[in-house]
Amino acid sequence: MEPLNLAAALRQVEDYWSPMTVATLNDYDVRLVRVFGEFVRHNHAETDEFFLVLEGELTIHLDGTDIVLHPGELYVVPKGVYHQPTAASETAALLIEPREVVNTGDAGGPLTAPRREL
Amino acid sequence: MEPLNLAAALRQVEDYWSPMTVATLNDYDVRLVRVFGEFVRHNHAETDEFFLVLEGELTIHLDGTDIVLHPGELYVVPKGVYHQPTAASETAALLIEPREVVNTGDAGGPLTAPRREL
Repeated sequence: MEPLNLAAALRQVEDYWSPMTVATLNDYDVRLVRVFGEFVRHNHAETDEFFLVLEGELTIHLDGTDIVLHPGELYVVPKGVYHQPTAASETAALLIEPREVVNTGDAGGPLTAPRREL
Repeated sequence: MEPLNLAAALRQVEDYWSPMTVATLNDYDVRLVRVFGEFVRHNHAETDEFFLVLEGELTIHLDGTDIVLHPGELYVVPKGVYHQPTAASETAALLIEPREVVNTGDAGGPLTAPRREL
């Protein structure tokens, strides 16, 4: 691979809630996602999920608490934990998770996005 | 876990070339490292290794090419590929790799650092 500039790669991510795989690490995907509004509450029964906010502000609603992340802040949602990402303004994040992870987890539904690569 | 602010966590990393685990993702470590000068050439036979530069400039010498990374730029060194990180000025990076990975890989030697957590 070539070195990947996150800001440049983000310019190629247009749709909200549709992660783009920009690199791989063994059987994990490194994904960029733009988000705005409210995502579906879901969990991933088999894996933790890594979030690093790059732009904006991401709130991850957990049952009983909210995690609020700004640029340069990261959080790992433990496997099996229900979470609902939301963003009141345009926000961008880097995600790392196993390649087979589907964005909507157990919830499915219309926001389910196919895996795609930069 | 609590949200992790990378800049704040970096202030707790003092020694060069001695990664600090700040979060875990399944059986992977998320590590912060400060680097300055030249590290030992080595490889990790069993795993890729993720680098995201946060401050400064990191050059990863590969056999036949140099990868130069600035803040906001990432690179994944493929498993088994010899690499020698160097930094001409104080530099900080986020690393992600399986928990059992030792920083000096197959080379060993005096720069080998024990796993440690924030």
